[in-house]
Amino acid sequence: MDDIISLCKRRGFIFPGSDIYGGMAGLYDFGPYGVELLNNLKKVWWRDNVQLKPDYVGLDSAMFKNPKVWEASGHVGGFSDPLAECKECNTRIRVDKELEKVGVFADEKMSEEEINELFDAHKKEIKCPTCKKTNWSRARKFNLLVKSNLGDFTEQNTEPTYLPGEACQGIYLNYKNVVDTCRVKVPFGIAQIGKAFRNEISPRNFLFRCREFEQADTQYFVKPHENKENYERIKQEQWNWLLSLGIKAENLKWHQHENLVFYAKDAWDIEYNYPGNGFDELMGIHDRSDYDLTQHMKFSGTDLNYTDPVTNEKYIPWILETSMGLGRLFLAVICDAYTVEKDDKGNDRTVLKLKPELAPVRYAVFPLLKNKPELVEKAREVFTELSKKYPCEFDDNGNIGKRYRRQDEIGTPNCVVIDFDTLEDGTLALRDRDTTEQTRVKLEDLLTN
Amino acid sequence: MDDIISLCKRRGFIFPGSDIYGGMAGLYDFGPYGVELLNNLKKVWWRDNVQLKPDYVGLDSAMFKNPKVWEASGHVGGFSDPLAECKECNTRIRVDKELEKVGVFADEKMSEEEINELFDAHKKEIKCPTCKKTNWSRARKFNLLVKSNLGDFTEQNTEPTYLPGEACQGIYLNYKNVVDTCRVKVPFGIAQIGKAFRNEISPRNFLFRCREFEQADTQYFVKPHENKENYERIKQEQWNWLLSLGIKAENLKWHQHENLVFYAKDAWDIEYNYPGNGFDELMGIHDRSDYDLTQHMKFSGTDLNYTDPVTNEKYIPWILETSMGLGRLFLAVICDAYTVEKDDKGNDRTVLKLKPELAPVRYAVFPLLKNKPELVEKAREVFTELSKKYPCEFDDNGNIGKRYRRQDEIGTPNCVVIDFDTLEDGTLALRDRDTTEQTRVKLEDLLTN
Repeated sequence: MDDIISLCKRRGFIFPGSDIYGGMAGLYDFGPYGVELLNNLKKVWWRDNVQLKPDYVGLDSAMFKNPKVWEASGHVGGFSDPLAECKECNTRIRVDKELEKVGVFADEKMSEEEINELFDAHKKEIKCPTCKKTNWSRARKFNLLVKSNLGDFTEQNTEPTYLPGEACQGIYLNYKNVVDTCRVKVPFGIAQIGKAFRNEISPRNFLFRCREFEQADTQYFVKPHENKENYERIKQEQWNWLLSLGIKAENLKWHQHENLVFYAKDAWDIEYNYPGNGFDELMGIHDRSDYDLTQHMKFSGTDLNYTDPVTNEKYIPWILETSMGLGRLFLAVICDAYTVEKDDKGNDRTVLKLKPELAPVRYAVFPLLKNKPELVEKAREVFTELSKKYPCEFDDNGNIGKRYRRQDEIGTPNCVVIDFDTLEDGTLALRDRDTTEQTRVKLEDLLTN
Repeated sequence: MDDIISLCKRRGFIFPGSDIYGGMAGLYDFGPYGVELLNNLKKVWWRDNVQLKPDYVGLDSAMFKNPKVWEASGHVGGFSDPLAECKECNTRIRVDKELEKVGVFADEKMSEEEINELFDAHKKEIKCPTCKKTNWSRARKFNLLVKSNLGDFTEQNTEPTYLPGEACQGIYLNYKNVVDTCRVKVPFGIAQIGKAFRNEISPRNFLFRCREFEQADTQYFVKPHENKENYERIKQEQWNWLLSLGIKAENLKWHQHENLVFYAKDAWDIEYNYPGNGFDELMGIHDRSDYDLTQHMKFSGTDLNYTDPVTNEKYIPWILETSMGLGRLFLAVICDAYTVEKDDKGNDRTVLKLKPELAPVRYAVFPLLKNKPELVEKAREVFTELSKKYPCEFDDNGNIGKRYRRQDEIGTPNCVVIDFDTLEDGTLALRDRDTTEQTRVKLEDLLTN
C-alpha cells in the first residue's frame, strides 16, 4: 500500500489535503491525473446506472438539508462513536476499537453508561498510542454528523444545520417530486453521486476512511414484498459492473451482515482485498423495506404513498439500495491495476494496467526527438487532432524510454510516437502499455476507434 | 422568471431543497433533467478548458481545508455582511442593501462602528419587510464563511473548521504539488469544479444567489508582468465559450470593476441579462497579481517560488482567474433557450431551444401507438440501440402531440417515432424540435452522427 500511496503522490493522482499547511487528517485532494480517473469512474457509473437503464433517473440534491431530515434518518440521535481522551497528552481514541484489540466487543447500540462499564474494566490494558500511559478520561459518545452554522444567524449557533452523513437522503426527499414530474412508475430507481462527511476520530488507510468522501448511490423503489427477486438481480448486476471495470474477481468477495437493524430485510457488502488491509467494504447493497420513506412521511407530514396508475392501489414503496464510496472504488481500481514487472533488461517496470476508458490519459503523443522541429510540429498536429476526441498528453521532455516509463506509471494505454517514418509515409508508431510492443498505425485508425 | 421557475419544477429540472419539509432558504436540488443539463455543462466546460487546452490541467481538492487557509485568504477576517434584526418580529435584514434602497451607500470595507453611524441616521426610514415597524437592533457584521466542527472534538466547538467560501483556494494550495509532479511549465493553468458556501442572509433570485453553489474556476499562472496579453486573451476566450453554448450575444455584457482591491490589477465580469433581474454577474475574470501565492507562502511557511527550468530565475507567478457559478450558468442557459411560440393552430408552444450537446435527452423514442405490440417492441429496440450512444427517453404514454410538447419543454432536439412505415421499410420518423418538421431517417444515420 505504501508503494501505491507513493505513486499516487509522485505521479499527481492524490495529494494530502492542505499539504503546504502540513495537511489535515482524513482529507485528500485529487491531482491532475487523479481527477481524470475519478471523473472517468463517475462517467462510466452514470452511463451504466442511469443512461443504459431505462428504469433509472439521476439526481443531484443540495448537500444541506432541513435539519429535521437528519432526525428522521436517525443520524442526530444515534450516529456516534465512543471517544476517550488521554489525560496525560490529550490523544483521543475510539474506545470500541481499542476494546476490540484486547478482545472485548462493544456493540454500537450500547449506551454511554454501558460502554464506560466495559471501558472501566479494561482501561489498564489500553495504552495511549502516543505517551503509552493508561490514564483515560471517561468515554463519551461523539456524534459523527458534522454540524455547521449555515442558515443559523444566532450568535451562539443554537440552530445547527448538518453536513450530509450520507448522500442518499436527498433521494428519499425527492422521490415524490420525481414521481410527480418524470413519468416514472414503480419499480424504478434514482441514482445520485454526492459528498458525505463524518467526524471520524481516526481516519485511516489512505482513501479508505476519510472525513470527507463521495458516494455513488442508487435507490430502487419496488412494490412491498417484491423485494427479493429485485435484490438478487441488483446484487448480481453490481458485482458484474465491478468486474467490467477490470477489477479481478479473486479480489472481490461477498459478505452478508449478521446483525441487521430492525427494519432491514437483508444486507450484503461487496468487499475488496485492499493491500495491507485485507478484504473490507467497497459497496453495500441493502434491502431496507419501507423504513426511509415511512420515517420521512412521519417527520415531514407529507404523504409519500405511491398510487399505482393501473390498480389505484396505494402503498409506501420498499427500497433496495446500493451505496459505494467513490474514494474506495478509486483505491480498488488503482490497487488492482498496479503491477510491477521485469522489463527485458531485468529492471522493475511499474505499470498501472487501467482499462483504456478509465485511463487519465488515453494517448500520450511524443516527437521522437525534441531538437527536430519537423517532428515536434507534426507531433503537435497529431496531439491537437487526438485531443478533440480523447484526453491526451504531449511530452517532448527527456529520452523516450523515460517518457514511456512515466506513461506506464499513470496507466496510459498507448504512446504515439512521431518519428522519421511518420514524415515519409504518415504512419505513427503506436506503443502498447502492457506488451510494450510497437505497431505502425494511421491517425485515422485512432480517430475512428 | 416565474414561468421559468415553474417550468423547472414541473418538468423535473430544479426542485426546492428539502421540499417535503417545507424547503430551506437558498438551497435547490437538481432533478432528473436538471442533473443531465448540469452534467453536460460540466462536461463541455471540462472538455474546452482542460482537455482541449494543452497548457491546462484539472484538479479536485477536498472541500475542507486547514483553517489557516481561510485566514490567509482573508475570509476569516473580512468576509462579512452587516446584519440587523427587527426587535418586534426578529426578521433579519442586510443593512447595506436596505440603506442602498434609501439612497445611502455603505462600503463593504466600513467597520461595524461606521455602519452603525449610517444606520442610526436612517433607521427610521427602513421598514421591517415583515411587520413594517422600524424598531431595529444594532447592525453587526456577520461572517459569510460557514463554520463547522469537522475534526473538532472539543465539547464547545472552539476549533472551528470552515466550508469553502470559494472553490479556488484548493488550486492555490496544490499549485506546488502540480508543478512538482505534472511537468507543467509557467505559463500554465489549473481548472477545478467545486462547491462553495456562503451564509447569505437573504438568498434570492432562484439559482442566482444560493447558500450552497458550485463554481467552475481556472487559475492561470504567468511570469510577473506577463499578465496583460494573457488577460485579454482569456477574456476573449471565455466570452466566445459562452457564445459557443448557444447563449445570445445581446444577452451578454462586459462590466469592469471600479473599486479594485489593492492587489488586483484588473477585474471584469461577463454579465448575463437574467429575466426580471437584468444584467448581473455570470463570470468574473480577475488579474490578481502574486497576492494569493504570496499570502499562502506567508501563512504556510512553504516556499512557493517557481524556478524557471531554463533561466533558473525564481519568482512567484502572477495569477489570472476565471470564476463562474455553475448555477448561474445553468440559469442563463435555460433562460436563453426558453421560448414561447405560436404553433400552427395558434396555441402557445413552450420550447427549450438547447444546443443538442447540452440537452438532457438527446433522442426521445416513441412508438406511434401504445396498443400495437409490434410498434412498441420495435421502439424498444431502437431505444436500446440509441441509448448506448446518447441519453434517451422512451415514452408510450398519451397521444403523440402531448408527448412532443413534453419533449419540447425539456429541450429534446429530436423525437424518433416508430410507425407503420418503420415496420415496412425500416425508416424512422425524425421530428425536429425547432421546426417541428419530420423527415425519414435510418437508425444507422443517428448512430454514426
